[in-house]
Formats: sequence, structure tokens, C-alpha cells
Amino acid sequence: MTSAAADKDPDSAPKTSLALARFLAGSRYEELPEALRHEAKRSLLNYFAVAFAGSREVAVETALSQLREFSGPAQAGIVGRSERTDAATAAFLNSASANVYDFDDTHPRTVIHPTAPAAAPLFALAQRGAAEGRPVDGRALLHAFVLGAETECRIGNAVSPEHYRRGWHITATCGVFGAAAACGKLLGLDAKEHLWALGNASAQSSGLVETLGFMAKSLGVGNAARNGLLSALLAERGFDGPARPLEGPRGFLSVMGEAADATEITGELGTRWELLKNTYKPYPCGVVLNPVIDGCLALQARGDCPAEAVESVTLHGHPLLRQRTDRPTVTTGREAQVSAHHAVAVCLLYGAAGLAQFSDAAVRDPEVLALRGRIAIVDDPQIPVESVRIELRRRDGSLETMVVEHARGSAGRPLSDAEIEDKLRRLAADGAPGCRPEPLIETLWRLEELEDAAELMRLAVPAA
Amino acid sequence: MTSAAADKDPDSAPKTSLALARFLAGSRYEELPEALRHEAKRSLLNYFAVAFAGSREVAVETALSQLREFSGPAQAGIVGRSERTDAATAAFLNSASANVYDFDDTHPRTVIHPTAPAAAPLFALAQRGAAEGRPVDGRALLHAFVLGAETECRIGNAVSPEHYRRGWHITATCGVFGAAAACGKLLGLDAKEHLWALGNASAQSSGLVETLGFMAKSLGVGNAARNGLLSALLAERGFDGPARPLEGPRGFLSVMGEAADATEITGELGTRWELLKNTYKPYPCGVVLNPVIDGCLALQARGDCPAEAVESVTLHGHPLLRQRTDRPTVTTGREAQVSAHHAVAVCLLYGAAGLAQFSDAAVRDPEVLALRGRIAIVDDPQIPVESVRIELRRRDGSLETMVVEHARGSAGRPLSDAEIEDKLRRLAADGAPGCRPEPLIETLWRLEELEDAAELMRLAVPAA
Repeated sequence: MTSAAADKDPDSAPKTSLALARFLAGSRYEELPEALRHEAKRSLLNYFAVAFAGSREVAVETALSQLREFSGPAQAGIVGRSERTDAATAAFLNSASANVYDFDDTHPRTVIHPTAPAAAPLFALAQRGAAEGRPVDGRALLHAFVLGAETECRIGNAVSPEHYRRGWHITATCGVFGAAAACGKLLGLDAKEHLWALGNASAQSSGLVETLGFMAKSLGVGNAARNGLLSALLAERGFDGPARPLEGPRGFLSVMGEAADATEITGELGTRWELLKNTYKPYPCGVVLNPVIDGCLALQARGDCPAEAVESVTLHGHPLLRQRTDRPTVTTGREAQVSAHHAVAVCLLYGAAGLAQFSDAAVRDPEVLALRGRIAIVDDPQIPVESVRIELRRRDGSLETMVVEHARGSAGRPLSDAEIEDKLRRLAADGAPGCRPEPLIETLWRLEELEDAAELMRLAVPAA
Repeated sequence: MTSAAADKDPDSAPKTSLALARFLAGSRYEELPEALRHEAKRSLLNYFAVAFAGSREVAVETALSQLREFSGPAQAGIVGRSERTDAATAAFLNSASANVYDFDDTHPRTVIHPTAPAAAPLFALAQRGAAEGRPVDGRALLHAFVLGAETECRIGNAVSPEHYRRGWHITATCGVFGAAAACGKLLGLDAKEHLWALGNASAQSSGLVETLGFMAKSLGVGNAARNGLLSALLAERGFDGPARPLEGPRGFLSVMGEAADATEITGELGTRWELLKNTYKPYPCGVVLNPVIDGCLALQARGDCPAEAVESVTLHGHPLLRQRTDRPTVTTGREAQVSAHHAVAVCLLYGAAGLAQFSDAAVRDPEVLALRGRIAIVDDPQIPVESVRIELRRRDGSLETMVVEHARGSAGRPLSDAEIEDKLRRLAADGAPGCRPEPLIETLWRLEELEDAAELMRLAVPAA
């Protein structure tokens, strides 16, 4: 709906925000399909994995060092760490840390990373509730998370792809609505209060693509969680917002969208679930590198292509592969995350593509430097973006060809439950020594049985 | 500069953000003209006046009731109140309260209310510094405030008028930059850190016009102060941002502006001062009502037009007067702030146009209801917006005509220092009983002599 149409006859305009608020208030746990509940648990497993990974990243450390000065009572934990802060500060930090390496989940159509902003404030609320003798049960948390993820992805659908293309960091701008909806559900808001929570979120939606690659990015993603939580808590206290925060003439869709389609928000509510389309990254890299890494790891695993025997590697891929990752020289780990040359080199040398292989130290490794200079990328528009053909020529003149049809983690080859578990184990070991992943994994799979959902956060911090 | 131009040749593009950051870092107090320092003090007087007025407004009360749960140590005061919170929370509340009645100052070209977001975090920082034995002197605070106001108004100029017209609440969206610049200056950031602070602010710029008239509006204005403060504090700790947060291809000007003019930000820096154009409202109403209220108060003061003798009142004014304020029936005090009929009625009946005359109670007064039905508005495009011709017809058939050329508070007839002082006295008495305005007024005028600028906030709360 355009703002002009809304101006003309506001009363006849579809009430998008109100319909969404009513759905959020009326939704019942029993109505969620089993497959959706399972996907929600996979999303949460992946969330804890990436939050462990990011828990000591420098942007998170720096934000914590400042925010703890202003933190209230120690209501909630920080994933992978022993510090505790007030619930709002914890929501900020746990959302920022889960997203800081861009290793979190992806809703493919919008490129939203849905779980960080929606889940982080729920765990903070659950811990706050438990401390006050009002525990939140596992079903309620799972339900609230599903509705939060649904809200942000649907609002993202309504403004995609123009919104991200213009320069909005969509995880942050839509995440605040997801956090508000999730927290509102956990608080038991009625439809009017949910509408206010969405309005309070609309006043706080922010985040620019220009900040990607810098610590400033984490402010948008952290604020989405914190400010969504506040939006719901304030709505519960009667803090009101406009009747049409999304579709109003000066609301989110008009101001932050271009030719937005409000029906994406309300169409098939309760029957079509966007969270079922969620995907999980196997590697901490730009997603177009996934098939390249799959193929190079497979080559390396065969043991017959030692790095010193490699004459050259040529990647035949969709033009996006070259456009996004043709970076033969890189100087930081962050830049290496979008360098095909670096990715091929570390896979062939180390047989691994984890955070350690995309660190500042890894880009300075002389062996990596030597190998990455022998890699080239060739466009082939016939090859889909989730595929690649790798041609590796040995110094002895022999040629190996490796074709990857569907990269791991793509919609065509989703990570298995066991692979997500492994991701969590690996990132906990790397990023958060002292945290024991097994009880967390086991408890997450039976989340709906928990009487106190805060139990999960107790398992996600170092043992006392 | 358009984003396309920046994409084409980023290195040759003007470095708007860097130029601004260098100016902020290099500016010296001694370079500020005396007239500018004086205008800054007038802005701060007006700030305390409106913060007193808003200190018990329901949105502020509600926000405080929630935020104090998450507040850290009692570092800073809330204008007009005895509670203390951490500095970030105090910045939020004192910015929100100063703006909540739309009674604060106005930079006419952008319609930014510049002082609330820029001043509120400075006082919080000053109190934090004093508590830690590192007081901030009055000159430093005055200087930082001037640079903050300059930053937000210049960024506003660059995106005006399209930005507000599209639906951005410009006080919030630009205010966060003003707060970041002001706090950065008080913290003594260097140019690189100021650039990061602007980048951190760019990730947090938010606020929609759709929320005006609702409590949600105060989230944007409160966050501008709080998040600007955090932007600067984080930058001081090395939290980095992009090189071109304003003019980059996915930066503020491209994403939140339309055909923005970056030269507005950097042109005549240090010689042209936007704060010199600041204006102050005499009445808590839409600014187009100012000449109407002036004229009706003058008519009432003559004593020869008692309300019961009034047959009709006709306002001849610029078409904007009718477009914005033709509301013969209103049901809330907030709506009454933009009703010419209500404004004329209360002026003729009570000889006053303060917050009490625009309350929910005032709109239900039977005498007001009876009189407001006898008022009409007639367009006259020849009459400037700051003027009006009022024709009052008595029941005896006689006609009074009152012409107001320049409304009080307009650029052509700015409020005098004494009038701003009176506004502060009046609003302190109404909004914050127990606060004594005289020592605050006296101390504000000699701000540059203070060794500890936190003294002002001590005078702005109820005596212990």
C-alpha cells in the first residue's frame, strides 16, 4: 500500500498492524506445526553456537566494558561469559555477539538473520522472570520466539528487496519488530498492547549497511533486541503508539520501504511460516563461498592434492561469486571472510574453514599467502549460486575437477541436526572455554518440557 | 552528493564526515562569537523550562517507571524530579521530557528541536564527571552544546525538506548525531574518534512522524540523547565505524535523505552558526497559532470584549493556519494544541495560553465549548504565516480588528531574555513544584564561570 492511498481513505485501508497484533495476541502454542517447533529448536541451537563464537569478539568486549557501567541489577547472563547485567543490557549483548561474525542463520529471501534479535531478549526476560519467582516455561519461550521470527521475516518480506538495496541493515531494522513481538507474546500482551509494542518498535528501527565491517554494525543488531524488549515492556505499562505504525502514511512501510507490499505481513498468517525457510551457515564466510569451501575440503580430504603440489585452482561459478569474493590479497580476518582466494587456500592447507582459518593471524600465514596467489575465478552464468565447478591443476600437469551441486547449508542441502550440534560444540570450544555444550544441546531438544526456560541460559555460561 | 556519484569514485568524493569530525576535534571555545554563546544560554534556559514542564508528563512517568528497573548507579538527576539514574538513562529521560509537549526550541529551516537531544546527555556526563572527581567546567559544556546543536542542524539542513516530508522525525534522526558530537567534544575525542562517534550514531538514527501524538514519539527523542552519548563513549574506547557514515553510498545522506546536499554540513564551518537562528515558543501550541494567541491575549487584556459579549471571531490568515488548525471540536489537550478555535476561546476567556489552557480538562470546559463554536478561519494568501488579522464582532454589532505583524517567538520578534526567564519560572511552578528557578536562572547566565557545570543540574531538581 502506498502512503498516498492511505492518505486518501485511511478508514478503508487494510489494517496491517492491527491484524498482526491480533494474530500475535491470539496465537496458541498448540497451533504450531511440529516441523515448525523443530525448526525453532534448530534456530536456537545455531543461536547459542554463534553467540559462543562471538562472546569474546572485540566489539562485544568493548560494548560490555561500556554498558556495564550503566547496567542495573544482575538479572541475566551473557552467553559464554560469567558477567551478568540487567535484562535490557543482556539482550543487547547476546544479540550483538550472535551476529558479530555474520555466522548466524539466514532467512534467504530477506537476508535477515532472524534469531539473534528475537531470541536474545526472550532469554533475558526468562531469567528476569525466574529471579522474581515467575518462571517462563519452555513452551511459552518457544512460542514467543516463533512469533518474533515470523514478525520480523514477514515485515522484511514486505519491504524486500528494495529496503536492503537502499542501504538498510535489515536484521536490525526488522529485528526490533521481531523482538517486540516475541517479548510481547512472552509478557502476554493483548492485541492493543501488541499494537503499541509494534509502534514503539517503529520509533526505534535503525541500522545502515554502511556500518557493515565495523563495530558500529553491532549497535544496530544489539539495539534491535534491547529496544524491542523495551517496546513490549513499555506497551505493557500503557505506553501507547499510533494505530498504524507499519502501514500508516508516515509509518515504517512508507518511510523505510519502497513500493512495500503490506499483504506480505498478513497473508496466510498462522498457516505459512517463514521460519521454516531458515538456513544455517556451515562456515563463517560470505554465503556464496559455501560451495567453494565444500569442494576444497572434499579435495583436501582425499589426501592426494597436497598444497605444495598445486599449480593453480580455477573456480567456475555464478557471476556473484566473482563479484563478491575476487580478493586475491586481504589484510584482515574480516576481509578474508569474503575472499575466495583465502578460502581455497586455507581449505587446501588446513582442511578446515572455521573462525581460526578466517582470523587476522591466518591472513598473515606465509603458506596461505603463497597459495592464494594461484587461484582464479571464471564467470559461468549457467552455474547456480549454490553450486561451483573447481578445477585443480597439479604441478605434474594432472587435473582434478570437483563439482558441488548444492552447498551445505543451502535450502537444497540444509545442515542436519547433527551438523548444527557439531557447530555448537566446535564454537563453544573455540569461543567460550569452560562452557559445556552437551547439557545445553540435550536440554534444547526438550525445550518444551522445561518448567523454567531460564535453565538454558544457566547452561550457556561457564560453570560457577 | 548522490550515492551513485560516491560509488563512481569514492576517493575523489568530498569527505564530509571527516571534515566535520576534524572541525569538532579542532574547535576552540575562544573561537565562538559572543552572540553565539549568549544564544546557547538562551537555548539552555528554554531547555530547563520545557524539561520542568514535561517532568511529570505521563510518557515520561511511564518511561521512568520501566527504565529505573534497568538503571545502573545513581549518577545523574532528572530535571524537576528527585530520582537519580545512570547517566545514559538520565540522558534519555531529560531529552524526552524537554520535548514531550513540543514546547521546546525550533530551528526554523529544519523544524529540529535542537537542544533536548544535545544538552540532556551533556548534563548527565557533567554529573558523572563530578561524581568521579573529574568535573567539567562551564565553558567546556557550553562549547560542547554549541557544537552538538550545530552538527544536528547542519545534518538536518543537508536532508531538508525531503527528510521530514517523507516521515522522519527529524529531531530524533538528526538529534543522535548532535548528541554524539556534543558528548564527543566534552570527552575530548580526537578527529578519528569523532568520526567513529558519528558512525556509531548513524547506526542508531531513528524516529517516525507517524508516532507524533503518541508516547512512542518520546522513544525517538530519548534514544537520540542516550544513543548519542553511547556513540561517543564507545568511540572513546575504540569502537569503530565506517569512514563515511554520512556521505557513503549506504550512509545516512543516501539512505535517509533524498537528493541530500552534503555541502550544507561542511560549508562555512566555524563562521556560519545555525544555533544563532534558534527560536523559542511562547505557547505550547502549533507554531502557526502564535500570532492568533498574541492577538487574542491583547484583545482580552483590553477588558472591553468579555466572552459573553462575543458574537463571532474571524481569523484572516495564511492558508497554513486553516490547514493545520481548523478544528472546531477537539477532545484532548494534545489535539487542542493544534485547534485555532480552542486557542481563541481560552485566550478570550482566561487571558492565558499555558499548559493549563491546553489540558484535557480545558477542552471539556463548557464556556470554552460554547465560545469555540463561534470562531471561523478565512484564507488570505497575502498574509505571512507569522501574522494574522483578527476580526471580533460583539453582540452589539460593533467590530474590533487586531492585526499582528510578527508573532512573539518568530524570527522577526524573538522572545527576549526576560521572556525566556519568565517561561522558565512559569513552567517550573506548574510542572515541578519544589524546584526554585531563580538560582538556576542566575547560574545559567554565568555558565562560563562555573568550575563544575553539574551545579546546574543540582539547581534543577527539588531541594533535598
